Amino acid sequence: MTKINPHFQKLKREYIFPIIEQKLADLKNAHPSAKIVNLGIGDIAKPLAPTIIEAICKAAQEMGTIEGLHGYPPSTGYHFLKEAIVKQEYANLGISHEEIFISDGANSDTSNIQELFDQECSVGITDPTYPVYLDTNILAGRNSFIRLLPCLEKNHFCPSLPDLHCDLIYLCTPNNPTGVAMTREKLKCWVDYALKNNSILLVDNAYSAFVTSPDVPRSIFEIEGAREVAIEFRSFSKSAGFTGMRCAYTVLPKSVTANLAGSKVSLHNFWNKRQSIKSNGVAYPVQRGAEAALTSAGLAETQAQVQEYLKEAKTLLEGLRKMGYVCYGGIDSPYIWWKTPSSQKSWEFFDLLLEKCHLISVPGSGFGLCGEGFVRFSAFTTSEITQAALERISKL
Amino acid sequence: MTKINPHFQKLKREYIFPIIEQKLADLKNAHPSAKIVNLGIGDIAKPLAPTIIEAICKAAQEMGTIEGLHGYPPSTGYHFLKEAIVKQEYANLGISHEEIFISDGANSDTSNIQELFDQECSVGITDPTYPVYLDTNILAGRNSFIRLLPCLEKNHFCPSLPDLHCDLIYLCTPNNPTGVAMTREKLKCWVDYALKNNSILLVDNAYSAFVTSPDVPRSIFEIEGAREVAIEFRSFSKSAGFTGMRCAYTVLPKSVTANLAGSKVSLHNFWNKRQSIKSNGVAYPVQRGAEAALTSAGLAETQAQVQEYLKEAKTLLEGLRKMGYVCYGGIDSPYIWWKTPSSQKSWEFFDLLLEKCHLISVPGSGFGLCGEGFVRFSAFTTSEITQAALERISKL
Repeated sequence: MTKINPHFQKLKREYIFPIIEQKLADLKNAHPSAKIVNLGIGDIAKPLAPTIIEAICKAAQEMGTIEGLHGYPPSTGYHFLKEAIVKQEYANLGISHEEIFISDGANSDTSNIQELFDQECSVGITDPTYPVYLDTNILAGRNSFIRLLPCLEKNHFCPSLPDLHCDLIYLCTPNNPTGVAMTREKLKCWVDYALKNNSILLVDNAYSAFVTSPDVPRSIFEIEGAREVAIEFRSFSKSAGFTGMRCAYTVLPKSVTANLAGSKVSLHNFWNKRQSIKSNGVAYPVQRGAEAALTSAGLAETQAQVQEYLKEAKTLLEGLRKMGYVCYGGIDSPYIWWKTPSSQKSWEFFDLLLEKCHLISVPGSGFGLCGEGFVRFSAFTTSEITQAALERISKL
Repeated sequence: MTKINPHFQKLKREYIFPIIEQKLADLKNAHPSAKIVNLGIGDIAKPLAPTIIEAICKAAQEMGTIEGLHGYPPSTGYHFLKEAIVKQEYANLGISHEEIFISDGANSDTSNIQELFDQECSVGITDPTYPVYLDTNILAGRNSFIRLLPCLEKNHFCPSLPDLHCDLIYLCTPNNPTGVAMTREKLKCWVDYALKNNSILLVDNAYSAFVTSPDVPRSIFEIEGAREVAIEFRSFSKSAGFTGMRCAYTVLPKSVTANLAGSKVSLHNFWNKRQSIKSNGVAYPVQRGAEAALTSAGLAETQAQVQEYLKEAKTLLEGLRKMGYVCYGGIDSPYIWWKTPSSQKSWEFFDLLLEKCHLISVPGSGFGLCGEGFVRFSAFTTSEITQAALERISKL
């Protein structure tokens, strides 16, 4: 009988969201009139900006005419969008439009990038982590080649350089779930490590639009040497409210190299080949929408939304700290990483917040062992909800 | 130094489209005023239907309001679209909406499905073939487990049952590139083979909307027993002019099983898990557009387009046959599989058509060794272009 990929059995993460949903359903059952405040979700809370909608509709209308017909998009994206990205995000960083690969999400890109590498590559993954990096490497058969890089209070939630060699290192900055961003100095250490050890950095920068600290770079390519060793993942999901529209991109400089049968070759061709084989690209109206998000009108609208989310993050962070709680993140990120009081387990504290405050968080332990003792709050919310959350917590 | 996936080196197909583009550029250089007739492209030639555009714009507008906000779509698709598909395409075939998985393309789905299986599964792939099945299995390390199933004149371009066992068998019907569809009787042989040998059929049915012959099923699930052994891939690309919009789906019945560590388990959960991990789904407006394509207004518009393409296919087929050429396909498919006169090689005949008629075809050898001696014509065109092509060929 046809055999299933045996690595499915090695997936180990706890699927927290179904459990959260079940607990929520139970609460609603017990207290039908409860007004739930949800700070758990990592999804946008504001409508798509008008400039973006206009561009999407215009592109769709265009496709209804013989002259404006658009069939298969280029598998790595339309030139117009690549150009707009280079101009807005990578001016003076030495990145060309040929090094931009448009996709339907940073989830897809960070899932698929590992296909370029040998099954026995060693992989450094932070703990806690966005679970996709871990799961996709486990499914690819690299379970025994994974090295977890703890992100704890004592290293300010930034991974320390590993003792054992890592061929690939996933860095997510500003980080999901901790909300902490890596400084220029810390990223420089990792770039130097990669240069010295012939490693490759896979930098998930989906939250770049939230960076406010002057010592935190908006792109890994601000760091000297990064163009030789880093691949960056960016997304319109959180910067332009695109979670429901699906558009992102990978930046893979031609100067990033790896070993193929003893020769040093550019990785760029391999990603290009992988994408050409396995993807037919992103819908034309979606790419026009993304392009519109990078116009001055689009930027004004979307950046205003990001500022509002950051304001909620600040209010949450300051409110919790004022009550004496220990919290991290929330400055260059929409996420707050809340240390549970009296060393409670993540799920215990989650349950407490749900029962006493009718408030939903995400248990940190769902992101890895080192997430134990934390819960994640999201600032993708409104000031009414933020206020309600803080009031309820103050009565705990 | 970090090692690249060594299986990239085993990719063997000739990348024909860049070569075609180069030859076309050379011709334009030599004859700047040449009027090229392109029957090579496998992409739609008609605008998106008005009902679809209206639904896309409405959905995008909706996303601009707090009430109509849509963030991350469900990773396997919205319920409304699954329901519409079941109602229109699978009524009375025993398929439930839970067995439908929405995606951004049959290219993605037929690329990704192999991830569910063991690296050492034996894989039957027709020759000629849509190259994605071959390339994705090679990249996954199954190069030495691939068994090519010849599709030749003598077996009417339908693969005969294999001598060596195949765990997985890719069938594309109506076929790209040959344009020939498998009859109910022939598909029954394969379903019986799969039932007897515990194999799984991966049925690419992206051209189902083009079926006109009464003995050709629209879905593999019309065949008794198929729900135990078959996975079907469908797409809105060719049925609703969606190549530029990107929406497709996989039908994976819960009753399809495989072996995990000695136990017989339903594959459904594994595809569900794979998609949940690696995909964040398809844009809301795109799914609303696909839903609109399945309304009675949408069906009327899109089916009229399909009928027009089929009319071009018929004109091409009959025109070529009247001139004494041997051609196949074109009845349940937009593709004509033209046997080169005097046993010319595919590229030789391609060059002849390009030079003498300024006409672009696709060399059959680009789809596999058994495609040698054929060229593919596409009927995604207009009657003016069809007429021009036939006139030029008649002067050969």
